[in-house]
Amino acid sequence: MKTNKERIKRDIESLSEFNATPGKGLTRFSFTKEDRQVREYLKEELKKLDVEIYEDEAATLFAKRKGTDDDLPPIMIGSHFDSVKNGGNFDGPAGVVMALEVFRTLEENNVKTKYPIEFVAMIEEEGGRFGAGVFASRAMAGMVSYEELVRNKDAQGISMAEAMEDFGFDPKKIGDAKRKPEDIKAFIELHIEQGPLLESKSKDVGIVDYVVGINHINVIIKGRPDHAGTTPMDMRADAMNTAAKVIGKVDRYAIEEKNGTVATVGSLKIKPGATNIVAANVEFTIDLRSKDYESIKRVKSKIVNDLEELTKDNDGLSFETVQMLDIKPVEMSKEILSLFEKNSKKNNFSHETMISGAGHDAMVMGNITDVGLIFVPSKDGRSHCPEEWTDYEDLQKGIELIYNTVVDLGEAQ
Amino acid sequence: MKTNKERIKRDIESLSEFNATPGKGLTRFSFTKEDRQVREYLKEELKKLDVEIYEDEAATLFAKRKGTDDDLPPIMIGSHFDSVKNGGNFDGPAGVVMALEVFRTLEENNVKTKYPIEFVAMIEEEGGRFGAGVFASRAMAGMVSYEELVRNKDAQGISMAEAMEDFGFDPKKIGDAKRKPEDIKAFIELHIEQGPLLESKSKDVGIVDYVVGINHINVIIKGRPDHAGTTPMDMRADAMNTAAKVIGKVDRYAIEEKNGTVATVGSLKIKPGATNIVAANVEFTIDLRSKDYESIKRVKSKIVNDLEELTKDNDGLSFETVQMLDIKPVEMSKEILSLFEKNSKKNNFSHETMISGAGHDAMVMGNITDVGLIFVPSKDGRSHCPEEWTDYEDLQKGIELIYNTVVDLGEAQ
Repeated sequence: MKTNKERIKRDIESLSEFNATPGKGLTRFSFTKEDRQVREYLKEELKKLDVEIYEDEAATLFAKRKGTDDDLPPIMIGSHFDSVKNGGNFDGPAGVVMALEVFRTLEENNVKTKYPIEFVAMIEEEGGRFGAGVFASRAMAGMVSYEELVRNKDAQGISMAEAMEDFGFDPKKIGDAKRKPEDIKAFIELHIEQGPLLESKSKDVGIVDYVVGINHINVIIKGRPDHAGTTPMDMRADAMNTAAKVIGKVDRYAIEEKNGTVATVGSLKIKPGATNIVAANVEFTIDLRSKDYESIKRVKSKIVNDLEELTKDNDGLSFETVQMLDIKPVEMSKEILSLFEKNSKKNNFSHETMISGAGHDAMVMGNITDVGLIFVPSKDGRSHCPEEWTDYEDLQKGIELIYNTVVDLGEAQ
Repeated sequence: MKTNKERIKRDIESLSEFNATPGKGLTRFSFTKEDRQVREYLKEELKKLDVEIYEDEAATLFAKRKGTDDDLPPIMIGSHFDSVKNGGNFDGPAGVVMALEVFRTLEENNVKTKYPIEFVAMIEEEGGRFGAGVFASRAMAGMVSYEELVRNKDAQGISMAEAMEDFGFDPKKIGDAKRKPEDIKAFIELHIEQGPLLESKSKDVGIVDYVVGINHINVIIKGRPDHAGTTPMDMRADAMNTAAKVIGKVDRYAIEEKNGTVATVGSLKIKPGATNIVAANVEFTIDLRSKDYESIKRVKSKIVNDLEELTKDNDGLSFETVQMLDIKPVEMSKEILSLFEKNSKKNNFSHETMISGAGHDAMVMGNITDVGLIFVPSKDGRSHCPEEWTDYEDLQKGIELIYNTVVDLGEAQ
């Protein structure tokens, strides 16, 4: 391999030092001391290379490596370096280190690409500090307004606009971070899988074909708080029993789609919530994800049908659903996908073509350019926790694959 | 009818004045000012009759009307006059008023019974202040120790022993409240139904044949907190989905018993409880009640079988059950039951032979004597709330029925 595992390891370990909660996982929120420290580290490393370094109005850090035809739009590569609270060292930084190592390897091998290559290191992807995630990529896609920056506040009540200004950026200029589709050739990201698939199938890399659509629905079932002892079964309006009949079937509905659709009820509230009182009110969330938007619609409609069937003959029972989130699936670029596959084979990397079940900056960038996304294995499928881990061998393979693909897509001469 | 509806109404209305939360339902806790006010009212009313008034070591108020053979054990009639927090005017007092009105009617009609009749007005049936219910009847059955009185505390940390002592009773003598089986001929109680059955069937009175057994089980299902997007359906250990598959079937298991068995899941806690995280831990309660203890055991075993089936093939899933309460069903006296039926017919009262789904003092008294229990209709099946209501016509019918039965059972001459 042309990339260098020791450099990759050193980068990951160095970045993990910039941490607000040492010993309790990695916490690196946007516009903090730790954010600044990462920028300084990255800039120092980038300054060793023949690149132009700059930041946009969303505080995203870029570095551009010239193409032989420098008027062509660049291939952008990278990810984010913010983290959740008490998270791990890989979610985000793995993709930033990828971009850095690809840049180094291009220079080391004296590769000249026709297309310019653009390094990108983003923040607030997790929404860890201000709540609204994939911030930097949304800014590039022109989806962030000044009003949002004023509205979104951290736990101390500091708005994103204030924090940004303190950090040396002008929040009123956020609109200028927008990039035109014709100004970017492609966006390629590397991210840890955050799931168990690659490890369980012993695959080196995951080639993402779709970032799933995500639907969040709140279901509220209303019944009657009858006495659990004195109310015969046929005279009840039991919100919990009704909810259970629906929740117990969502897994089957997801599996029936036969395309990796997933359905999760992760939160449920019951009122009044006493052992000897029939539940009068049950509210639960449904998280539906699929690469096929039709699958999301079908599962949702089966759930709503069930709710209608279960409540229609009982005057005491009613339900409502509230759509909390509705993001459509994003398809990755077929051209980049086939380059990933070709280079996987060339390197003898075993790969799995798979969906991304979590949202990523690549999903947002799909709105304005062709995107490619590589997953590297997550130990025990874990992420967003101190135990988050990817072996450096595996990380290097993902980076090597993107290096090869950048060489191909960038038309190295 | 021989009983007097106006007197009954006046008693109920008078007792409802002794209330710690006027305007917010009735709250009458044990050993309070309101408790004392009820005792004073009842004693004043009883003093108008030819009875002997006394209190036992559990602060239960009694009044004894002589029998023509005064060495015979008395027929005890009555109920409790404490309430839940923000409850209603009937749960408890209806049965105390019954006893008072029966006594008045016996005297008014100059009835001499062979057996003595004993009025009883109990407290802390609800466990509203100190948590442990059916206190006074348990004391008569010899089931309350001094240690319990020291252990059980109210919301202010005052022990039942302290409160009792302040009220003028010696908690160390609680054991003396025990009554021998041979010293009581029978215990007859009237209580509101607290359910919808009598109203929905337009019945005047309910004749209880069994007080149900009650089983409370806590079920804990342990899974794994996987990412809701990145974890394929077949790689999950979803505690909520597993719980739902069980909870959604408990109603059917209860109905299959075809004997009025009821099953309720009224409380459920989910962890971590986030929309996008698979539930790692779900804990819920099951309340099972039946007149047939075999039915309780069968439903419970079906639930445990389901839990075993659902978890056995998934290493990430496990469960445990904790038995929180296990009370066996209590059968009412067949002799008293047939007297109730006979007198119902004589009065042209429509009646329903039914189970009591809630525990009552009669259930505890069943341990030491023959018991009879009459239900009067609850408007909309409601109780333990300010809306609790029984029409005075209905209440009178229940009281008349017990009056006739006391005359029969007491062998009026």
